[in-house]
Amino acid sequence: MFRDFVKEPVISRAIERQRVELDLVDIRMFAGGSFRHIDDDSYGGGAGMVMRCGPVLDALESVRTEDSYTAVMTPAGRRYTQETAHFFASLAHLILICGHYEGLDERILNHADGVFTIGDYVLTGGELPAKVVCDSVIRLLPGVLRAQATVEESYEQGILEYPQYTKPADWKGEKVPAVLLSGDHERIRAWREKEALRITRERRPDLLIPD
Amino acid sequence: MFRDFVKEPVISRAIERQRVELDLVDIRMFAGGSFRHIDDDSYGGGAGMVMRCGPVLDALESVRTEDSYTAVMTPAGRRYTQETAHFFASLAHLILICGHYEGLDERILNHADGVFTIGDYVLTGGELPAKVVCDSVIRLLPGVLRAQATVEESYEQGILEYPQYTKPADWKGEKVPAVLLSGDHERIRAWREKEALRITRERRPDLLIPD
Repeated sequence: MFRDFVKEPVISRAIERQRVELDLVDIRMFAGGSFRHIDDDSYGGGAGMVMRCGPVLDALESVRTEDSYTAVMTPAGRRYTQETAHFFASLAHLILICGHYEGLDERILNHADGVFTIGDYVLTGGELPAKVVCDSVIRLLPGVLRAQATVEESYEQGILEYPQYTKPADWKGEKVPAVLLSGDHERIRAWREKEALRITRERRPDLLIPD
Repeated sequence: MFRDFVKEPVISRAIERQRVELDLVDIRMFAGGSFRHIDDDSYGGGAGMVMRCGPVLDALESVRTEDSYTAVMTPAGRRYTQETAHFFASLAHLILICGHYEGLDERILNHADGVFTIGDYVLTGGELPAKVVCDSVIRLLPGVLRAQATVEESYEQGILEYPQYTKPADWKGEKVPAVLLSGDHERIRAWREKEALRITRERRPDLLIPD
């Protein structure tokens, strides 16, 4: 499931330049029996299967070191944000546990350092969230993108990024705001600041309310 | 970039059973010139490249019908939630525009019905967000998962899902809560309700605050 992911330009370059090392651990290899079942029915009833403690925690112990931070990706987690991405980017060793099926045995969470969701929606498994986390973290690692590329974008300043335009200045009657063609850097800066606030107010008013 | 995605069990089954049809449109095919550039510098200066109106909107017009809903995936969008997933699952035709590079020319947004972000973090492109949207929507389509599978999960009741446990009842001293082994369905229901609220209060207090 990660074959395409490691071929994406930014990710593959980061791996080649040895800015990051990605290891995939197949939890199924830590399940006993010839069928290697990693899930079972939920105690107390309910739809779906639950991933068992044994295979998940044995897989975890096989890679965990003193420097590891272990995060579980589940819809019932805290919100993963750009701040978490920066924290993860500062770590020497990050372990992401991806659930599948109905969910993970809750006892697994006692062995993790954090429990995160990438958003308020439900996915078929934890693999896409793990890719989202890897992508957002790897692009922040030193030497992966140009130094300035990540400074002015959405969330870094606590608000959304200002609108951007490129050629042509007139596209079938839709024009680029004149200020951006003025060459007046101070006016451009002020306009972008105002527009970033306007867009944030319109699309994400929650970002403007202090916690 | 979508080759692995369409092979995932739930997605490939939904495609086989004709519950969904996925079409990929390469925006580069709508760029003129021998280099097929789809991006250019940002008016007013700034780091990074911006995707041009022409190729993106020509690609859009090549697939758009009267029944289409067009969503742009960008960090500077509204929050994509389980509610949005249900809305998208009800549509006859959904078009997702994935940006890449620094961003999209803002005029492209005038041609979309909605602008969404899958979370408060920045990724290298819009492909992962598109997969996240597809995954969360496809699993909700009729005949893809068992009917009951999606009812009790996180966000469907406005709060996180209750904790789940499976065998063994005692894992190296960590025990499954006794109530789940009691067989008393009413007590189990009450315990799960209480625990779902406790977890939500701990990990996502924001979900308990009315808008």
